[in-house]
Amino acid sequence: MRVSQLLGERYKERAFEIESQNLMTRGGYIKQVGNGIYSLFMPAKRIARKIENIIREEMDAIGGQEVLFPVVMPASLWQKSGRFESVGSELLRFKDRSGADMVLGMTHEEAAVHLASNVAGTYQKYPFMIYQIQTKFRDEPRARGGLIRVREFTMKDAYSFHTSKEDLERYYELCFHAYERIFARCGIPEVIAVKSDSGMMGGKVSHEFMLLADIGEDTLALCPHCGYRANMEAADCIVDELDDEPEAPLTLVETFEHKTIEEVCRFLKAPAEKSCKAVVYQRNADDSYVVVFIRGDIEVNETKLRNYLKSEIHPAIELESHELCAGNIGPVGLAKSVTAVFDRSLLSRKNLVCGANREGYHYSGMNLLRDVGKVETVDVGKAMEGGICPDCKKHGITIKNGVEVGNIFQLGTRYTEAMEMQYDAADGSRQYPIMGCYGIGVGRLMASVCEAKHDDYGPIWPMSIAPWQVHICALRVDDPRVKEEAERLYLELTSAGVETIIDDRAVSAGFMFSDADLLGVPLRVIISPKTLARNAYELASRDKSIKRDIAPDTAVGELKALIESMITR
Amino acid sequence: MRVSQLLGERYKERAFEIESQNLMTRGGYIKQVGNGIYSLFMPAKRIARKIENIIREEMDAIGGQEVLFPVVMPASLWQKSGRFESVGSELLRFKDRSGADMVLGMTHEEAAVHLASNVAGTYQKYPFMIYQIQTKFRDEPRARGGLIRVREFTMKDAYSFHTSKEDLERYYELCFHAYERIFARCGIPEVIAVKSDSGMMGGKVSHEFMLLADIGEDTLALCPHCGYRANMEAADCIVDELDDEPEAPLTLVETFEHKTIEEVCRFLKAPAEKSCKAVVYQRNADDSYVVVFIRGDIEVNETKLRNYLKSEIHPAIELESHELCAGNIGPVGLAKSVTAVFDRSLLSRKNLVCGANREGYHYSGMNLLRDVGKVETVDVGKAMEGGICPDCKKHGITIKNGVEVGNIFQLGTRYTEAMEMQYDAADGSRQYPIMGCYGIGVGRLMASVCEAKHDDYGPIWPMSIAPWQVHICALRVDDPRVKEEAERLYLELTSAGVETIIDDRAVSAGFMFSDADLLGVPLRVIISPKTLARNAYELASRDKSIKRDIAPDTAVGELKALIESMITR
Repeated sequence: MRVSQLLGERYKERAFEIESQNLMTRGGYIKQVGNGIYSLFMPAKRIARKIENIIREEMDAIGGQEVLFPVVMPASLWQKSGRFESVGSELLRFKDRSGADMVLGMTHEEAAVHLASNVAGTYQKYPFMIYQIQTKFRDEPRARGGLIRVREFTMKDAYSFHTSKEDLERYYELCFHAYERIFARCGIPEVIAVKSDSGMMGGKVSHEFMLLADIGEDTLALCPHCGYRANMEAADCIVDELDDEPEAPLTLVETFEHKTIEEVCRFLKAPAEKSCKAVVYQRNADDSYVVVFIRGDIEVNETKLRNYLKSEIHPAIELESHELCAGNIGPVGLAKSVTAVFDRSLLSRKNLVCGANREGYHYSGMNLLRDVGKVETVDVGKAMEGGICPDCKKHGITIKNGVEVGNIFQLGTRYTEAMEMQYDAADGSRQYPIMGCYGIGVGRLMASVCEAKHDDYGPIWPMSIAPWQVHICALRVDDPRVKEEAERLYLELTSAGVETIIDDRAVSAGFMFSDADLLGVPLRVIISPKTLARNAYELASRDKSIKRDIAPDTAVGELKALIESMITR
Repeated sequence: MRVSQLLGERYKERAFEIESQNLMTRGGYIKQVGNGIYSLFMPAKRIARKIENIIREEMDAIGGQEVLFPVVMPASLWQKSGRFESVGSELLRFKDRSGADMVLGMTHEEAAVHLASNVAGTYQKYPFMIYQIQTKFRDEPRARGGLIRVREFTMKDAYSFHTSKEDLERYYELCFHAYERIFARCGIPEVIAVKSDSGMMGGKVSHEFMLLADIGEDTLALCPHCGYRANMEAADCIVDELDDEPEAPLTLVETFEHKTIEEVCRFLKAPAEKSCKAVVYQRNADDSYVVVFIRGDIEVNETKLRNYLKSEIHPAIELESHELCAGNIGPVGLAKSVTAVFDRSLLSRKNLVCGANREGYHYSGMNLLRDVGKVETVDVGKAMEGGICPDCKKHGITIKNGVEVGNIFQLGTRYTEAMEMQYDAADGSRQYPIMGCYGIGVGRLMASVCEAKHDDYGPIWPMSIAPWQVHICALRVDDPRVKEEAERLYLELTSAGVETIIDDRAVSAGFMFSDADLLGVPLRVIISPKTLARNAYELASRDKSIKRDIAPDTAVGELKALIESMITR
């Protein structure tokens, strides 16, 4: 390829806050077509294809069969699984010309079960895994960050089918390691796997693969002692239990206009951890109230709350109600019509301050099981910086941001049961296959590598996914020797199978180098009157670790060897 | 791959009339998900990828830059080009969660101009060509024939941009030959290019690449003398002009209840070619009447009529009107409110029979220019079997069916003007780039190859696109020597880079061979106790041209050489 012909313009001005979006826009990789919808220029498309090929090789290596599911699906498939109704408006629904309900695929469990149904009727066919690399659409309300969070994206999604939980677990482990290899081969071996919440997918065990980065939208709880890693949505909130004082009596206290738990604690000189705050939600379905009682210093994790309630909720909008005494809500004497959820953190301290369900009054000395009765307590609290690790029980949990670049789920039989896919087991009985599913977003992975591997001047693409392997800068193409040598090297490298781009424009060295920085090709060969005067080309690596002369005669062989050594396998 | 693990079932029962649909369904290649929507099993996906790679290589060879456009696009792009309104309901329109109008891409001229806008501002950037291989959706009312006519499909679409008509023509020619190479490399060099109608794409010159096949939905006019080839929609209808008699006077004749032109001609003993029939249409927009007057023996080509009228029409549904005297409509004295179109075939004969616009009466002796005036005549007639070639003027046009496997268009400035894309020309003026566009449907090409290359037992895939290159049949795997030899060969071939599938199931030879026939792998190696007894493997080609023993020791090398010789480059 020639830079002179390459479509896409590179420019200096900062375009966006998020660095991958900034560099990929400024570098002529992507162009926004609509909210969360992008076209890719040639360099980005080449990177995407290389990532796809790495994924394909690793999926094939664990026995995957590449298939293709449709982007547009009849709604009937999603009605069978129940997700046509249960998934929110990120599932794009529409009618075709005949008036039939259709959906745009945002994930393909239904399509996978549809494809495998009737063709995997006996246990001998199992296990098997099918995968595709295909466009998906998710009508994401908050698209942001270039390819980091988009509405349309290319995704590898894989689905495995098993006859036992043990076999699924064995395969899940295989896939886990295939994922580690994929991220390492793409140049970001630092990606970590964290326990995650399965969300709308169903299933119990799941992991997300995370690139730690400040721009990440996921929040992770990591233990520096034992290596515990979990998405906040799945991280247990553990607090130490203190049994250091006798139980005091429940006492009604006038608290006047003090409403928030902070105000009340300050007024009563109680620490926040010795209070019980009330956080009020409403169910989306009928606006009925759900009050979470939790220790005053701990936040509610809404995902965990949703999972516990098994219904969608939102923070309460309307608090004027005869059921609730806003600002004084407490667990003792709460209206029976309100759903109360008791976080287990309430058991960690005695003698809490809490609302008295009466205008202007709170209680002190509240002890949950004594004063409310033998209620169920659950974990709906957010893990905290410095908190206790659920695994090793040591203090020191750290909270970090991460970008999710992949995920794996043990789905179980949720989809095969709903869609009535069965097989004849070895014992003659009819059984539902047990499924796993495994996703990687290609565009987000590309943007994540850019996020992890760049400097102020542009991306530093790892050799394995770089758009080209060698970038020839012909400085002063008006000099016939420069032109001749550069073109000769270009031809020889291309013939030798080296992916080469040549900048043959009559532009200044500064201009040419800043374009080359934005294209991020790992190896650069500079040919100029100066280098030729010393009978050499100048070789420089984009990451600045190499900068030396090479002899024109041996350049091709040397570059080939260098490229080979730079590809992670 | 192992047949024992391959997902998809093969069966004997005839499934569909159209052979490619029948064999690809019975062979475990495709599964219908909805009307005109299919999933692909692994063998079809592998074929599709190979076809895509051939296309990619040929597009890259003519300087194409692979990019990616979105499947989902904001309607605003299509509003700019005017196609949001002008294209019918095959363009799928819907609203996203924010209520914004969106479309599903069925072609990407708008997206291509969007991507190239602002990054090709000076003439030095030209010419360039960008292409993508991506999923498209066309809400096709008559999906049929498996992958022959679907609603969702994978397509390569390319868009070139030029600064002169000559440069577009030069590139169009390059692309024409690239297409010939693509079809030849995919195993169907017999594909022919025909002149076509540009339809909704706009532009003047266009060609379709056609595989002649009875199941084809396109009708082609071919000249056996000079090689003239055109889609019926674009084929000129030429009739010989006879000047063999003097003009007779226009005479009113009572024709009683005779209405159709056949009845009237029989009654008046006039040959059909000496009559002027009236074919009535209505404009879709307002139901206003359009009457086509054409020689009685010639059919109206509605596409040519539409192009002439520049509006959508349908055969008239309601003929009871004060404007028209149904059964007696003629060119003389027709109501002025009706649009009359005169086919030029009316000039080829004198003294025609035609309706008199009066119940029960026709005229004889009608001579168009004399009796109606100096009206414009146009060509809206269908070319006929045996008709006259527009190029060499000899009789003998033959009419054949074809499947369109690709098309190329000279678009001109229709899209760049509508979307205001301009560049600075060498003379300093602002100009609109001139475009060409070039499409190939991957799935339809796969089905077309199957249509052209199969026998009663299954597809005969050409080596260049076959799902695997070698199919090992291990007959009697219960014999340890068979198993050992087959597995060894499988391992050696796979290690040598030969794409191999092995049938290691304990099934009968007949069962195994009929599965192998349906998988259509070009080379088959049979290993059985019998072949081993004579210290050999049996080699057979799917097309039956090869059937001989090969020595186990030299099998890998021999197969590799054979494969190499069977790939069209």
